[in-house]
Order: sequence, then structure tokens, then C-alpha cells
Amino acid sequence: MNLAELPTPALVLDREKLAANTAAMAERARAEGVCLRPHCKTAKSAEVARLATRGHSGGITVSTLAEARYFAAHGFTDMTYAVCAVPAKVDTAAALVRDGVNLTLLTDDAATAARLGARAAELGVRFDVLIEIDSGEHRTGVAADDPALLDIGRAIADSAALSVAGVLTHAGHSYAARSVAEVKRIAEQERLAVVTAARRLRDAGHDCPVVSAGSTPTAVHAESFEGLSEIRPGVYVFFDLAQLGRQSCSFDDLALSVLATVISHRPEHNRLLIDAGGLALSKDVSANELLADTGYGWVCNAAGRRIGDLHVAAADQEHGFVSGSRVPFDALPIGTRVRVLPNHACMTAAAYDAYAVVEGDQVMATWDRVNGW
Amino acid sequence: MNLAELPTPALVLDREKLAANTAAMAERARAEGVCLRPHCKTAKSAEVARLATRGHSGGITVSTLAEARYFAAHGFTDMTYAVCAVPAKVDTAAALVRDGVNLTLLTDDAATAARLGARAAELGVRFDVLIEIDSGEHRTGVAADDPALLDIGRAIADSAALSVAGVLTHAGHSYAARSVAEVKRIAEQERLAVVTAARRLRDAGHDCPVVSAGSTPTAVHAESFEGLSEIRPGVYVFFDLAQLGRQSCSFDDLALSVLATVISHRPEHNRLLIDAGGLALSKDVSANELLADTGYGWVCNAAGRRIGDLHVAAADQEHGFVSGSRVPFDALPIGTRVRVLPNHACMTAAAYDAYAVVEGDQVMATWDRVNGW
Repeated sequence: MNLAELPTPALVLDREKLAANTAAMAERARAEGVCLRPHCKTAKSAEVARLATRGHSGGITVSTLAEARYFAAHGFTDMTYAVCAVPAKVDTAAALVRDGVNLTLLTDDAATAARLGARAAELGVRFDVLIEIDSGEHRTGVAADDPALLDIGRAIADSAALSVAGVLTHAGHSYAARSVAEVKRIAEQERLAVVTAARRLRDAGHDCPVVSAGSTPTAVHAESFEGLSEIRPGVYVFFDLAQLGRQSCSFDDLALSVLATVISHRPEHNRLLIDAGGLALSKDVSANELLADTGYGWVCNAAGRRIGDLHVAAADQEHGFVSGSRVPFDALPIGTRVRVLPNHACMTAAAYDAYAVVEGDQVMATWDRVNGW
Repeated sequence: MNLAELPTPALVLDREKLAANTAAMAERARAEGVCLRPHCKTAKSAEVARLATRGHSGGITVSTLAEARYFAAHGFTDMTYAVCAVPAKVDTAAALVRDGVNLTLLTDDAATAARLGARAAELGVRFDVLIEIDSGEHRTGVAADDPALLDIGRAIADSAALSVAGVLTHAGHSYAARSVAEVKRIAEQERLAVVTAARRLRDAGHDCPVVSAGSTPTAVHAESFEGLSEIRPGVYVFFDLAQLGRQSCSFDDLALSVLATVISHRPEHNRLLIDAGGLALSKDVSANELLADTGYGWVCNAAGRRIGDLHVAAADQEHGFVSGSRVPFDALPIGTRVRVLPNHACMTAAAYDAYAVVEGDQVMATWDRVNGW
């Protein structure tokens, strides 16, 4: 099938760019001597996860238990559920363990760790548990030098159903960095945070085999991975305008786009309308902090070349308002297909249950993805 | 099942509030002598559509062909597809017509109308077509006094496969209004636009039975519906913080919320984290223009009462950062359920494939919804 025959809006994935992105990160991790445990919250696709884990252990990272169930059903058996767990989620997690999945949990609180352990013991399952370290984003996690770190380690070790697997951090504040130099500084801060926390836990008698750091900007730009056992970048499989703005990638690496159709011309407002709006593109506008006139995405022709400075300036539910310094109406008659490069691939992809996988203008496959919780 | 047993995040719909919202709008339309053709793009649910159409003709409005297929499969046979159609979508629309659906199309362009008609004729189906009028939002549509209006009417009438059904407008600019007085002014502008366009078409010899206006703010606040045959509000079935900010509803009318769980405490940052982030809440921040400190939604307890001024101040993919002037950590231990009132119900609901329908704290039913295109 040709791209031109797809109903719109459609989520289009360029297979060659995906393959290049996944191969480059896998090679970088190998060269640096760390394991790559890709965060599958971006693609939520078994096909993409198979490509991304090639040459590594096959372990992945997930952000929801729905992802864990989906990837387990597709043969993945080594997963880190990288959101702090609560006791009410242990039952679902335990069912996966009983099905043969090595599902590692995350915590940043000693009392919660004890409750997780109590519930796991009641259910007769064991979990490896990572302690989340706050390396500067101030989301979840404890600081590497916080006395609570050792309390959490002790609470895990004291539970017959839990083991201390190590430490994990996510330098989410790298997303706000305004220069590569700043990303490099944050990457080093991220590395030192988990290395320091791991040393403190080891000094207290814990094994702490896993020392895990991860974000796409820091994975791309870090100058040292010393002391890390693994990295967990996610959005690098597709990249997006926000990552382009952060200089994590080049324009030619952008593997994901939304195919849309021109549905109306408003030359008196220098505007045309497409059938991809806030649902098809997401309402994420993060890239605007990093790139000028990004709006809800850059508008390209069907071959993926940007059309002037056209961008989706506003987005109603099913309408994208395309504008730019000069809209070439004659070249874009009603019915024309365009491709929109999204601001934030993780958010945009979540509106779709499948990828149209293309090579050039040929649709080669449909790959499913999992949404929800 | 009790609300406390639901896995989180979950989309919670209060049945009594939904019933009150749908009954009030149905009664308002009846009292004003117009038909209510609810826009089902918000709920995308057959159960909600059945409630919303009660006491009216049963006709609905849809924003995607996926909605049209879904509602057809659930017994709805009278639908307006209220996004300008392109020839490539006629085949899918024709399949619905063959299955017995009266699917009315929309256009704002004479050449496109001719192409729609040509394709419909090739497929051997007929469509009623509405002409979209721009009543001030400057999205799609032609101005009521634009000479092009009559060209479009003629193009439709000239096609053996199409009939002029009438005119339709959507005063989307009512969403930017800052006062009820301004909404009332826009409602009158919306009404006059379609009434004027209908008169011009009738003067030119077209029947023009449908004179359709619609948006929740204008449906709530309009002072006259004279000359309208129908209204198409959508989000009024649930309302949301953006509509509360526009004074379309009161706090007690807010029927939709996201159930979430507290997963981490960060007292040193006066912040707690919940397991509902940018995907569970959407990245829509429109309500912030109308209400102070809305963030990504207001945080309530499990019973639906707001907790101080708590709101979701930031949203990563699966993490909501809850803040406020004073976060009551002791009352919200890790594991506590909270409910977040969303900014924009249409965008938030789209992340879920079902509603947990509650009365008080009891989950009475699960209602499916359709997503995608």
C-alpha cells in the first residue's frame, strides 16, 4: 500500500530511521560498557522493543502495568517497572511474576517498601526492588546523601519477599536544559547520584548490582558512564522536535510523523486546516521552549520534507490550524497529504493503537502498540 | 465494587451528574423549540449518547468516521459528520450509508463539493450536505455574506448524488470569551451567521431545512435560538474546569474525574506525586486562562471534594506533581486515592477506552468508548 492510500490521521513510522536510531544507541551503550534497557513507554510496541534490545540482554523498562502485561504476552521476561510502586499494584505485578516475568519494582520510601514486602509475602512471590534516587529533577526519589536511603535499603532487606536490586534515577531535568554543555553537566550529576547511592548501600552491606540512569538527552551527551550498569533512554527510538531542540538528534533522525489531509483553505487568514488536531497530535507544546514557531508540530510534505516554516499554530480536537510566513495554497490543494513532525513523540503516539511502518512511501507493515493502564 | 478497588489511573463518571447535565440541556432545547443533536466527540460512548438524545430525535454529531462506525454499530442512524469532508473519506462514509445510516457531510468549498459528489455518484450513494459557515472562529467555513456560499450551494445542488441539507456553524471562539456577556454576544453572532446564510440559500432556491449552531458555552448562555433548527453542544454532558471557568456550569456539575493514587511524598518541595500524569490527564492547559492555579487539574479527595487549593502543577508521562499553598501530607499517605478534575474533558477522556460509572463510591457499570480514526 502507498502512504497516499492510508486513512488520515495516521501514525507513520519510518523503518530505516527507527533502525538507525536503535542501532546507534545500542552501539553507544556497548562501546561504553553499559547495558541498554530501553524505556518502552515511548513506542509501547513489541516490534520496536525487539529492535531496541538487539545486541543487549533483552531487558526493558516499562511505565505502566498494562505495558508489563503486553510485553510479557510478547515474550519479554525481564522488566523494570520504573514508577514508584504502591501496595495496591502488587497483586497485578505478582500475577506477572507467577507467569515467569522478572519484574523489578521501584520505591523511594521505607514504610511503603515494608508494605510492598508484606503484600508480596502474603501472595507468596518475591520481587527485586530498586531504590529511586533523585538526581535533580525533584520528582520521585531520595537524594543520594539522604539518611533515608539506608532506611529504605534496610526495609527492603528486612522483607523476606524483597531483595535490594540496586538504584535507579532519571534526570528528567535534562529536558529543561538549554545547551549541550548543560545536558553534559546534568548527565554527570545523574551518574554521580546513582554511583554515590550505590556506594553507600554497598558500604551498608547491600549487593546493589543495578546502577541505572536514564534519559535520552543524557544518554546521548554523557561523557562518562563509569559505575553505571545500565541506561534507560526511551524517546531516542523515534526522537521528536523537543529532542531536536535539545540537540539530541538531527532532523533526519525524526522517525515518527502524523499523516494528515488538507481539509480547508483560508487564504484571507493565511491559514489552511488539516484533519489532525489536538487528539491526533497531542496538546504537548514542550518543543516551543526550544525551537521557534513549533506550535503543535512542523508540517512536511508527504515525502517528509518541511514546507517552508509551516507549522500547526493551533489545534482544536480534530482540526489543525496550519500557518507560516507564506502558506503555498496552490501546492497544497484540499485533499493533499502532509506529514506533521510531533513535538513529543511519547504523547502523540499514545493517541493511536498502531503504527503504519513505511519505507519511503510504501507501507510495509502495521505494528500494534499498547495504551491505557 | 467500591471506587477504592479500581486500578489507577481510571476515568470515573458520576452517573447522577451526567443524568442531570443531559436532562438540563435536553429540556433547554425543548423549551427553546430546537432539536438537540449532541456532539458525541466528548463522550464517544453509546450509553452517554442514549442519555443525551432522550426526548429528542436521536440524531447525533460526530467528529470522526471511527465514531460514525461505532455509533452505527450501536444503533444510531442519524449522524452529522461535522468536519469538512474530503473525497478520500467518501468511500468509508458510503459504506455507512449502505448500512442504513443517514450520514450528513460538511463542506466549505465548491470544488471539493463537486469532487465529493463525483465520488458519491461513482459509488452509487447519496449524501445530504451541510455548508459550514464561519461565525467568527475563522477555522473552517465561509462567511455568511461570502459570495462563495451560493457557489457551494450550486455545486451541491448540481451533483446528482448530493442535496443541500442546510448550514452549520460552530462558535469555537466562545471558548476564548472572558465573560458571560461576551459569550451571549458570540451566541447571537453564531445564530445570526447561520440564519443569514440559510436565508441567502433559500433566496437562491435551496430548501435549507437544517440551521445548526453549536458549542456548549453558547448553548448554555444564548438568549435567542430563533431561526435555528438544532444545536450541537458536546462537552456539557461532563463539563470540566475550562467550562467552569467560562461559567457554563457550577462545580457540582463536573461529572468526570481521573482516579489516581498518591505514590510519593516530597515535603521538602511541598509536593506529592500521583500516578496520573500527562497521558492520564492530557497536556491540555486551557483552563488556566480562566481559573487561577489550575495546572493540569484540581485535586479532590475520593469523595470528590477539593482538597484546599491542591492542583496538578506539572505532568510527566506517568507522574502528576501535586502542589498547593499547603500540602496535607498526613491526610494523604502514600497509597491514598484522589480524584483529579480535568481541564478539558474531551482531551482527558481520549486516553481511556472505558468509563467507570459510579454512584457515590460504588462502581455501577463500565461503559466503553471509541477512540482513534
